[in-house]
Amino acid sequence: MSASISIFDTTLRDGTQGEGVSLSADDKLKIAKKLDDLGVHYIEGGIPGSNSKDIEFFKRVQELGLRAKITAFGSTRRKNTEASQDRNLQCILESGAQAATLVGKSWDFHVHTALQTTLEENLAMIYDSILYLKQNGLEVIFDAEHFFDGYKNNPEYALSVITKAAEAGADWITMCDTNGGTLPHEVYDIVSTVVSNLPQANLSIHTHNDCELAVANSLSAIQAGARQIQGTINGYGERCGNANLCSIIPTLQLKMGYDCIQADSLKQLSNTARFISEIANVHMPVNQPYVGGAAFAHKGGIHVSAILRDSRTYEHISPELIGNKQRILVSELAGQSNILSKAKEMGLEFDPSNENSSKVIDKIKDLEHQGYQFEAADASLELLLREANGQISELFTFESFKMLVEKSAGQPVVSEAFVKVNIDGQSVYTAAEGNGPVNALDNALRKALVQSFPSLQEMHLSDYKVRVLDEKDATAAKVRVLIESKNVSNTWNTVGVSGNVIEASWEALVDSIRYALLGQINQNDKHSNIESQHGLVNH
Amino acid sequence: MSASISIFDTTLRDGTQGEGVSLSADDKLKIAKKLDDLGVHYIEGGIPGSNSKDIEFFKRVQELGLRAKITAFGSTRRKNTEASQDRNLQCILESGAQAATLVGKSWDFHVHTALQTTLEENLAMIYDSILYLKQNGLEVIFDAEHFFDGYKNNPEYALSVITKAAEAGADWITMCDTNGGTLPHEVYDIVSTVVSNLPQANLSIHTHNDCELAVANSLSAIQAGARQIQGTINGYGERCGNANLCSIIPTLQLKMGYDCIQADSLKQLSNTARFISEIANVHMPVNQPYVGGAAFAHKGGIHVSAILRDSRTYEHISPELIGNKQRILVSELAGQSNILSKAKEMGLEFDPSNENSSKVIDKIKDLEHQGYQFEAADASLELLLREANGQISELFTFESFKMLVEKSAGQPVVSEAFVKVNIDGQSVYTAAEGNGPVNALDNALRKALVQSFPSLQEMHLSDYKVRVLDEKDATAAKVRVLIESKNVSNTWNTVGVSGNVIEASWEALVDSIRYALLGQINQNDKHSNIESQHGLVNH
Repeated sequence: MSASISIFDTTLRDGTQGEGVSLSADDKLKIAKKLDDLGVHYIEGGIPGSNSKDIEFFKRVQELGLRAKITAFGSTRRKNTEASQDRNLQCILESGAQAATLVGKSWDFHVHTALQTTLEENLAMIYDSILYLKQNGLEVIFDAEHFFDGYKNNPEYALSVITKAAEAGADWITMCDTNGGTLPHEVYDIVSTVVSNLPQANLSIHTHNDCELAVANSLSAIQAGARQIQGTINGYGERCGNANLCSIIPTLQLKMGYDCIQADSLKQLSNTARFISEIANVHMPVNQPYVGGAAFAHKGGIHVSAILRDSRTYEHISPELIGNKQRILVSELAGQSNILSKAKEMGLEFDPSNENSSKVIDKIKDLEHQGYQFEAADASLELLLREANGQISELFTFESFKMLVEKSAGQPVVSEAFVKVNIDGQSVYTAAEGNGPVNALDNALRKALVQSFPSLQEMHLSDYKVRVLDEKDATAAKVRVLIESKNVSNTWNTVGVSGNVIEASWEALVDSIRYALLGQINQNDKHSNIESQHGLVNH
Repeated sequence: MSASISIFDTTLRDGTQGEGVSLSADDKLKIAKKLDDLGVHYIEGGIPGSNSKDIEFFKRVQELGLRAKITAFGSTRRKNTEASQDRNLQCILESGAQAATLVGKSWDFHVHTALQTTLEENLAMIYDSILYLKQNGLEVIFDAEHFFDGYKNNPEYALSVITKAAEAGADWITMCDTNGGTLPHEVYDIVSTVVSNLPQANLSIHTHNDCELAVANSLSAIQAGARQIQGTINGYGERCGNANLCSIIPTLQLKMGYDCIQADSLKQLSNTARFISEIANVHMPVNQPYVGGAAFAHKGGIHVSAILRDSRTYEHISPELIGNKQRILVSELAGQSNILSKAKEMGLEFDPSNENSSKVIDKIKDLEHQGYQFEAADASLELLLREANGQISELFTFESFKMLVEKSAGQPVVSEAFVKVNIDGQSVYTAAEGNGPVNALDNALRKALVQSFPSLQEMHLSDYKVRVLDEKDATAAKVRVLIESKNVSNTWNTVGVSGNVIEASWEALVDSIRYALLGQINQNDKHSNIESQHGLVNH
């Protein structure tokens, strides 16, 4: 039997204290549902005493009927008052939460500097507040703020704080590394001492990432005997963030033999992380451990050829266990094995001994030398590979474009584009405005095509990146444009490179639409009616 | 006396294996210079056998005369061949590097699966290759790939591999956690065993961040007796990245009592991290430990009032030690003091109690909210401050521009710009071509101005950067353009922001020229002849 670790999620409370993270009550409810599906044991929803958004959350979350315990956060009572008269404690009781996290001081320096009260009164504040909530039927998690700094400064007082919390009946005692400055061996030593002083207590750990050690510190505490981890999805939180549950849960479960959540739920981890980053509107780093898009992406040539023989050679776990997947990136560092495996992934037959195939490998290398980057432009790469395999029939050809940007003093800037394409032997000439030059080009190009290809109505550009390649050449430098496009079911990426940002954008735009229509060709091929519909125009 | 730790930087090699990181030879040279200023001891520049870009880097880096040891990376000789006949080893020798990192297998599974040779031949490959490079005068760092996985699978063989490397004369023996799956306590135990087996060897640690433990694993190895850390700036690297030197160096130096780099250089850490993220064009997470923009940012409420009483209450170190700074979010204090110190730096009199001054502070904050960034655009900020101080008299005013990009199938793209400005009451209308839209605008604007202001002939644009701000808004997103300009004696930076890349570029171009002419005003003011020459046109 392996030990169980309780997972306490504070994405909705401490997570929202991170810069750039701001969640509406609706957002919080969506995230709570997702966290519950993942199987966390506690969901700290916010501070009911602080704002109406959190009050609304606590009210509406009860209707969802979640399995996780909904937890409200607040401070111990104010100095020299009664717990029953404290407004914050009252708000917690009124919130309807099943559990309360109560934060109290355990660093004597803070008692003097921040609270400006005596060490004795601080102990009374903690004892009274916990007792009051327990008497009112709540489960109580006591958060000992600055516990490690406090312990280093005055171990006796820090221990007396959590002993007092245990006496008052706290269900969990959380040791917080509030400033994130403690090191893993210090956490291990201090938690070990606490375990031997309070052998009956349920201990919990709450760390911050200021030294990039929040995950390691959480694991250290577990190894020393703590049985609950407080953290957030994707490590959101004040300053450098909280302990990242997306890294902690799989490590505890897959490598250290602890039980946290169901193995089946673990497969939802990557999806959960991405979902919450979308709701929070925070860009998810591609290299995020375990759940990031590049966590199992292989770029180096040697790596790739070994991975193809046996994935254990360069993967520490099987990505499927956490719902992520292996990807092979194409880059100048890699040999042709990357391109071959990409072709295989795309279901293309591709024989490296064949002359056509080695030509396309040379072509890709040459394009990369010019500044193209296919690792983030799968769709452009697929178009090249299919072209080399003779599998592409173009549905339209380009004749010309003009793009005009005009501005007069005091007037808003105007962008217009004029596009001429040939569809099925017919020249189509259109004009459109846009809120910028690329938007105008995009609008004009779709306008020209959408009557013949109505499926283009369902796609849109979802991401646009520009990178100046040799910045020293200033405005004469090459730029690389990466475009991400989406329709209801798919996302694809294309690339364009030119000394002219408009031409580079145009290239990526055209590839995006060619790729969208490629799907249409394949789809229509199955029904054998594409040729009679449009006639195929060869490139 | 505290122990010294050698810092081995592999940003230019392993760092470029990260997704989205791609560096030109020029980029690599700029980064090498910056790393040398920081004081790292080894700079691994690339793989001289792999591509022409790396060969160029190793050639040109010698001209920089850096203090750090320039290091070339490569594999041990191929199986069943002579070291002296090995092409990769030859490339390392020809590169001119002072040191070589040689990677060899230490996991028996890899010897069989990836190399497909015998355990004995692998030992011979390692021994021969190290000996050959040592005989040719190079310092050799032996990278024992997959050392921890190898040790767990077959400790005897893993130890025999590094023992063999030591016998061949390797100067450093690096234990690599190549797949990033090892835990800190495992690293500590295994490194401790190695230390007792090879007490004379110089041991180095190389970790990856697949479990978000790369920093903790590096520190564990040091605590067990290793004396070198291999890592990258900002943790760039394959998959989830390498050990992040920006977190490791300050922790070792400020918290653990080791010597890594000079205390003065440590103050360059934040700047170095930001510079390299700009060159690599990889977005730096605001919550990055130590060096990120939010690492010492405090949101309103309890934290802020405590911080104002004593910054130790919520900061684990003083941000100045690593060149970062405290920020109080949602507070007037932070912005204002920044602007005041900037004004002082520029020699401007600037009184915050004065109404004009508080207006310009509000204006700057509003612009920053819109996406302007003055940290990298001193000249644009100076124009704003001088304007507020009534110190600017414009020498020209803008009337209108038009910018046309045209392309027909099979023809090169054409860019033209038409600019109308007013100089001294006279309208001047010019047209020019360029190799891109911004270049055309630049050409047309100078053409309009240069007759009246011949000094503009001496300036040119030396750097041009584009960043898409809200990538999710795709082609409707705002972009920020940063332009660097130079004349014989000065360099200055300007910024423009707009939903339209052309308009944003225009803004930055105009600021650049206004700034150049500001110099002229000042210069001419001294000779008191500017007004009679041109008459001042008020903006």
